[in-house]
This record gives sequence, C-alpha cells and structure tokens, in this order.
Amino acid sequence: MKKIAIYDSTLRDGAQAQGISYSVDDKIRIIERLDALGVDHIEAGNPGSNPKDLEFFTRVREMKLSHARLIAFGATRKVGVAVETDGNVRSLLAAGTDAIAIFGKSWDYQVTQILRTELDENLRMIGDTIRYLKQQGKEVVYDAEHFFDGYKANPDYALATLAEAADAGADCLCLCDTNGGTFPNDIFDITQKAVAQFGKTTIGIHCHNDCEMAVANSVMAVQAGATQVQGTINGIGERCGNANLCSIIPNLQLKLGIECIPPQNLADLTNVARAVSDIANMPHNEKAAYVGGDAFAHKGGMHIDAVVKQPASYEHIDPEAVGNSRRMLMSEVAGRSTLLARIKAVDPSIGKDSPETKKIVDRLKQLEHEGYQFEAAESSFELVVRKILGKYRPFFELIEFKVMVNEPAVNGMNSSAMIKIRVGDEVEITAAEGDGPVNALDKAVRKALERFYPAIAEIRLTDYKVRVLDSKQASAAKVRVLIESTDHREHWTTIGVSTDVIDASWHALVDSIEYKLVREQER
Amino acid sequence: MKKIAIYDSTLRDGAQAQGISYSVDDKIRIIERLDALGVDHIEAGNPGSNPKDLEFFTRVREMKLSHARLIAFGATRKVGVAVETDGNVRSLLAAGTDAIAIFGKSWDYQVTQILRTELDENLRMIGDTIRYLKQQGKEVVYDAEHFFDGYKANPDYALATLAEAADAGADCLCLCDTNGGTFPNDIFDITQKAVAQFGKTTIGIHCHNDCEMAVANSVMAVQAGATQVQGTINGIGERCGNANLCSIIPNLQLKLGIECIPPQNLADLTNVARAVSDIANMPHNEKAAYVGGDAFAHKGGMHIDAVVKQPASYEHIDPEAVGNSRRMLMSEVAGRSTLLARIKAVDPSIGKDSPETKKIVDRLKQLEHEGYQFEAAESSFELVVRKILGKYRPFFELIEFKVMVNEPAVNGMNSSAMIKIRVGDEVEITAAEGDGPVNALDKAVRKALERFYPAIAEIRLTDYKVRVLDSKQASAAKVRVLIESTDHREHWTTIGVSTDVIDASWHALVDSIEYKLVREQER
Repeated sequence: MKKIAIYDSTLRDGAQAQGISYSVDDKIRIIERLDALGVDHIEAGNPGSNPKDLEFFTRVREMKLSHARLIAFGATRKVGVAVETDGNVRSLLAAGTDAIAIFGKSWDYQVTQILRTELDENLRMIGDTIRYLKQQGKEVVYDAEHFFDGYKANPDYALATLAEAADAGADCLCLCDTNGGTFPNDIFDITQKAVAQFGKTTIGIHCHNDCEMAVANSVMAVQAGATQVQGTINGIGERCGNANLCSIIPNLQLKLGIECIPPQNLADLTNVARAVSDIANMPHNEKAAYVGGDAFAHKGGMHIDAVVKQPASYEHIDPEAVGNSRRMLMSEVAGRSTLLARIKAVDPSIGKDSPETKKIVDRLKQLEHEGYQFEAAESSFELVVRKILGKYRPFFELIEFKVMVNEPAVNGMNSSAMIKIRVGDEVEITAAEGDGPVNALDKAVRKALERFYPAIAEIRLTDYKVRVLDSKQASAAKVRVLIESTDHREHWTTIGVSTDVIDASWHALVDSIEYKLVREQER
Repeated sequence: MKKIAIYDSTLRDGAQAQGISYSVDDKIRIIERLDALGVDHIEAGNPGSNPKDLEFFTRVREMKLSHARLIAFGATRKVGVAVETDGNVRSLLAAGTDAIAIFGKSWDYQVTQILRTELDENLRMIGDTIRYLKQQGKEVVYDAEHFFDGYKANPDYALATLAEAADAGADCLCLCDTNGGTFPNDIFDITQKAVAQFGKTTIGIHCHNDCEMAVANSVMAVQAGATQVQGTINGIGERCGNANLCSIIPNLQLKLGIECIPPQNLADLTNVARAVSDIANMPHNEKAAYVGGDAFAHKGGMHIDAVVKQPASYEHIDPEAVGNSRRMLMSEVAGRSTLLARIKAVDPSIGKDSPETKKIVDRLKQLEHEGYQFEAAESSFELVVRKILGKYRPFFELIEFKVMVNEPAVNGMNSSAMIKIRVGDEVEITAAEGDGPVNALDKAVRKALERFYPAIAEIRLTDYKVRVLDSKQASAAKVRVLIESTDHREHWTTIGVSTDVIDASWHALVDSIEYKLVREQER
C-alpha cells in the first residue's frame, strides 16, 4: 500500500479560526488524540508570535508520543537580519522540537508589496534560515506560502524559491494555496510540475477552503505526486477553514488505497473528530462527510427501503469503516432494531415486537421532539427505559426547591438554594450556598440525600454543558444541559431540557444521582 | 461570456435534509428569492410522493416569475405499468408546470437488486415516460440516478440509459453522483465521454457532498462540458448535503468567466444564502465559502497587517463581489492596527502610540484571559473602549437584584426577579416573572428603565447563546453568554462572562441596553 504523511495543524492554523482559543490542557488532550490516531506530524504552535506557545512547548516536550513528531512553526528570518540573531528563529529553536516548519514567500508581488524587499533577499531569507536550522540538526518542512498564486503570476520566481529551499536541505517542500482560491485542475498541473522538478524532496500540499474545494484540491495534489498532506481535524481554520483531514484521510485510504494512518486506527476517526469539537468547544458539524451524525442518516422512505435491501444503494462506504454508524430517520422499524440492543441490556426478555418496545419508541420520539438527544446521554436513556419497564423505583421525591441569586453577592457567594425532599416517610429540608445557582442547587440536593444514600459522596461532576436550542426565542429559549459524572469506576452522561437553565440542570442532576443509585443497587 | 444553466433543488432535495420542514409560505419566499437571484430552474417538489407538494403546485402556479421555470420532480413510470395510468406520472402532469424532471436508474445493480426487474424494462420505463411527457408539451430533464457508479460497473448499460432518454426527446441529461462517492478526476473523464456521445442534448451534473468534494466535482463537470448544474442554496440536502450553489456560482462566474446568473445579481448571493438559512430555520454556516460571516474575517496580526496593505494578500476575491464584507477580528493574536481602526471609530484623535491605545490593549488582554471574546461581541468591545476613553457616562446604577427560581412553579412561571436601580437621583424598584431566571431578569430591568429611556422598548433580543468555558469545573464552571439584539435599524452583539449564568447574562443584557442608549445619544 502506498503511504503518504499526514501533517496536522489543528493546534496552529486551526487556532486562527474565529472562536477558537485553546488552553494548554486542551492542546495536550488534542496531541494525545492525534498521536493515537497515527498522524505523522503535529504542528503545535508558533513560539515566535505567541509567548504562551513557547511556554507550552516546554511542557509538551515531556510528553511521550508513540508515533507523531511535534512541529514548531514560524517565519524565515526577517529582511536584513542575520539568521543567528533573528528573534523568531531563536524562538523556534528554543521550542526544542526535532522538527520545524518555516514559511516563506513564493509570490513576487508579496515580496515587493508586503515584505517590501528585493526578490533576491527573499531567496536568501529562505536559504539562510533552512541551512541554519539543518545545521542545528532539525527536520525542516518548508511551507511555500501563496505558491499557486505565485506560480500563476511568475512561475520562474516561484520555482526559484523552491529550488533555494531544496538546495538549503529542506526535508519537505509544501505547496500552499494560502488564499484558497486555486482550482483542482490547476492544483494538479502545478503540483505535477513541482514533483517533476523537485521529486527527490518530499512534496507537500496545504489547502484552504475559500472555494469549498480544499479536500478535492488535496486529493488532486496527491494524485499528482504529493506525499505529504497538511490539514486540520474537522477542517477548522481561519476564514473558511483548512483542508479537512477527516475527509481527506478516508478519501485517500478507503477510495484510492493510499495509507495515511495505520489501517486499524481508521475506525477511531469519528471519535477523534467529535473529541476535537468538544475540546475546542465548537458544535460538531453533523453534516460533515464521514464523521458527521447525518453522514449516513437516511430520511426518504424509498431510500431507507433501498438501504435496508442493499446498503451500497445510498451509501458510498460502510459507515463502520470510519467509526460512524447508519441512522434511519423517521422510521419506527429501523429505529426499533437500533434501540433493541439497549433495551435488552436492561431486560433481555424484551423482543422487537413487545408492546414495551413500542412504548419506549413513542416516548423517545416525544422526548426528541422536546429537544432531548440521547446520543450523548445514554444514562438518561437507560432511566427512561427502566421507568417504562417498571425496573425503577424513585429514590426520592422533590417537594420543592427555591434558588436565589443576589447581586451584590453576600459573603462572596451570590447564590443559595433551599431544598425539601421526601425519602420514604422522612422529609429532609436543607440549604447550600454556591458559585452560581446551579452549583448551589447541586450542593443542596447532595447534602439532603447523603444521609439516606452515602454512595452519593462518590459522585463527582466532571463536565457541564449548556446548549441553546431554537435560539430565536432569545432569553426564553429552550436549553439543553448535559452533565458528565464519575465515581472512579465508570462515568456517565445525563441530560435535561427546559426553557429554564436551572430546571434543565435540575433534571440532569437528578438523572446523574439516580443512575449512580441504580448501579449501587445492582452491586 | 459562456452561459450555463443553474438548476436549484433547495425545495426538493434540500427538503430531504434532517431538520428541514418547509411550510408553503417558506417555499414561496424561497422561490421569490431564487427567481430574483436569476437561477434558471427551481425544482419545487415531488407531487407524486407528497400530497402537500401537489397542493403547493396549485398555489404556486399563480406566481409570476421573472426568469425561473418551476420543475415538478418524480420517478419514471413503475415496473410493468402503462405510462398513461401511472400514478406518479399523473401527479407530475397535475402539478401543471411547464417543465418536469424525472429520475431513472443507470446502474445495472440497482435495476436488478432494488427495482428487481429486467434491464430492458428499465430502458422502456425511461423511454416511455419521457416520450409521453414530451407529447404533453413539457420540457423534460432526465436525472440519471447513480450514473457515475453505474458507469464504473457497466459503462455500456449506463450509456444505453442515456441513449434511451435522448432518443425519447429529453431536453437535458443530468448525470447524478447520487451517493456522493465519486472523485473529481473520474467525474471529469466520465462527463467528457457523455458530452462526446450526447452533446446535442444539454448535459447536466448533480453532485452530493459525501466526500466533501461536491463543489469541485460540479466545477470539473462544467470544465468537461456540462452546461447545467444542479445544487442547493447553502448545500443543504440529505446526509452531507447537495452541491452548494453558493460556492459553485461564484467559482464559475468570478474565476472561470462562465455566466450562471445575471452578473448584476451576484452581489445578492450572501443575502439570499442568509435568507434561506433563516427561512429553513437553520443556523447559517459562518465558515461557508463566499457567503459565511467568517469567509473574509482575519485574525492573525500578520495577516491583518498584510490585508490592510493589499487585500489580495489573503483574500481570493473582493468580498463585495458576492455581497459579503471584510472583518478584522479582535483577539490575542490580532495586531494593534486592527484595534486602532475600531478605536478611531470612537475617537479619531487616538493614534497607534497614544497611551490610551496601550491601556485598551492591556484591558483587552485581561478580559480575554477571563474568558471574554470580542470577536463576535463588537458592541461590548466598543463599550470597553468608550469607558477607557471617557466617552461614556453610566445610564443607570444597579443597587441590587434578587432572582428566585421555584420548583414547583407558581402560576406557570417558575422564576421571578426583583430589581432596584438608580437613575440620576431617582430610585426605581420593580419586579417581573419569567420563563426561567434570565427571562425574568430581562423583563424586570427593561421595566425599571423604560420610564427613563423609552427607546429601550425598541430593543428585541434575537439570540441568546451560552457556552461553558473550562467545563472541568462542572457546575461551578465559567460560562460565556452572548446576546444578539436588534432595534430594526441595526443589530448588535454583547457578551458577559461569569461562573454564574445569571450574572453572565446580566452583564450581556446591560451591555445590550447601554449600546442602544449610546446610539440614541448620537442620533
């Protein structure tokens, strides 16, 4: 199987996207996922332009990666500055990575108009920087910025910049469609020329999505001979984004038989894509090719019938190949067979045609209509199933709660919650203060219940997410709250939906506590 | 200028997308926008499979369209049924459009496995149906379903289906990549063969986005000789969507000089794209090529400096050409030159080296560190600038508020808010009930202020977004609230950050009100 290298820039070019701002922990979690997926290079930041990135490299050097090489990214030396004293170049070396990517200009217009220097000085900037980094023992990737625009404007000069980089010892010449304006046929032709001339060096491709053709452009470049592809998970990046590795990898690997990542890892792709969306705190694109929740969702009755007969009728690949799955929308029959496995986990005696199955499907539809989504909240779903199957007894009954938020805060705590519950014949009333109303309510309900169910003390909430549904209703919009909990044995996710964020949080909290108590009963 | 035809299926294939459900009014508004944009065909529905669509055609026949032709879409006659008596074919005629699209099978496997009939009968189904519709005086578009997969499996049979359609008098043979699995080079080669053989008839292209290459595939097909392109606005459609006309039209028209719509209408494209998102009740994809809010947004400081010098540095087209505009984002990595333009909008006397500029930059960094992000919340940013420049007087002072949430709800309202404010020497205390605590607080503060500032009555909140930052803190995590407001003259976005969702909402609400009052002062 032919092999090409995957070069991920989710942390560097991806961070240029609007709304993206990674913490150091976020970055480390993304590196771990990318390394496990099996990408070859991880471009982790620009230590020259961002002091936080330099700090981060210090910390990240201690990570043990199984496969990927970390890349520090930066510019060539500045106009008229000796490379040894150039601040950016020094920061790149200070990052301490084995591999470095530097970008330089290929477009004559950019040299004279933006850098405002001579064409020859630009060549020296490229050559000096690469030669110096190679002397320091680094692997060097040269990013030829605006290569395609530059080639169209002045092919001789664009090729001369590559020649300079190759002569200086660059390990890879990466052709960048920086503005994302180049067409697939031009990408193919120009890449083919670069490969013919500099084929001894690895040729890379770096595309942007401004014409919505970045994936096709990357594929065409590989077909023209490029053997390194740069891109980002989910295609995140500035403006319209970078080339989307979640589409490029399966396109090349499943359709053209070109290995991008170890074949056994391909089924992890959907998980990695969702994890990066979560870490970057962006809604996952459910329409995304291969890794979106709708990518293998069938709606039309005719299409569903055909897919049931022969999946290849309306599916270009087997969804399992990328760790995704088929979904039949608006189809009770198909829906039931999917649900059945989950229902059987609670009660193995239930069959496809049991009346309970229909009841659960109906309840599920009603809840989904209200804005519930059980894909992430399987524990709340299990509780719904238990309630319908009679495999559930309420652990407590809420009599009332009152949550108060005060501005200005009192003693540094702006919120307090009073709660009154009944367990069996006993009534407990208590209260707690918190940092925000949900925190106060969370503390109060645990306090009230711990006397009856000491196991509650083991629950830790590890994540709390709020998403607004139907946001046209503004401050009266419906919100969906997801709570992740753990007791160090397992972790579980529960959901609540309401027009009121407190009420939605309450339902998710109660589900979290009840799920824990159900598990305790079974132990 | 070469001209090709644009065939829009937003109302038909677009309606297959998950979450899409148009009312008749929605459809009529979309048809009006598409006609004004200048598309050639509007595929409006499938009267055979959906009785509502048949009703709709009756109503829509009364519309006076300036340019576009309406299309009713449906299948060929069924296996073994006489075309005159086939229910679907009768519905197509009953729709009363001048033009009809029918789809038939090109893939031998689909004929034998899904239709479960003879290959010859499938040819007769295509021929009979087209011949009959032509006899009724209709323009007929023939959609060759699965054409590319069919061609790869059995080229002779796939071409025979086209020959049958052409012989029967079809006005257009549209080659469909129904499963979206075909690669650009194959689309090019196979389209070229079809054009060579059936070039006397218009050849169309219909792509799906399952490999994230539908736009490139459509462009390549046009380069191979296709002269009709089918797609949808914003690429909406089942699974990963249809080919996105909002990218294809400017790609072809601005980059290849091929006329798709009248040139003077191209600047309406972004408006049409946003209007369709609104009508379909989907969030607009801000990362979309050409028509997304981020398509010409620049964040990196270096990029911003270059774009200010020469827009072509990092923009592949002039954003105005498609009715979009350039945006410079505020962020850690943004240079001072970005900020300066914004600061100068408040006070033109401030320069790059003014001490106030440094103060603003420092304050911005501090706020970003706390979790604020001003990229989307430009109005809150303007208030920060005004406060530092002394161009702001407080409109009111909060003395205190108390928000109470009760479970169970009282009179159907579970939340109430009491608020006490000072305006000049006057103190106002009031209260309101709401659907959730934020809604109650929103109502209370407006009620308290309206007596002093009647203009507040014009503010409508149009969107409310909550995002949890650093969600590892679970229920005590920081949240960021964004509020979008409008007064029918302009719309603005404000931000609040706090560990308490009520407090964060409060800050965003206050900014929204103060921004409005600042604008009123200036009027």
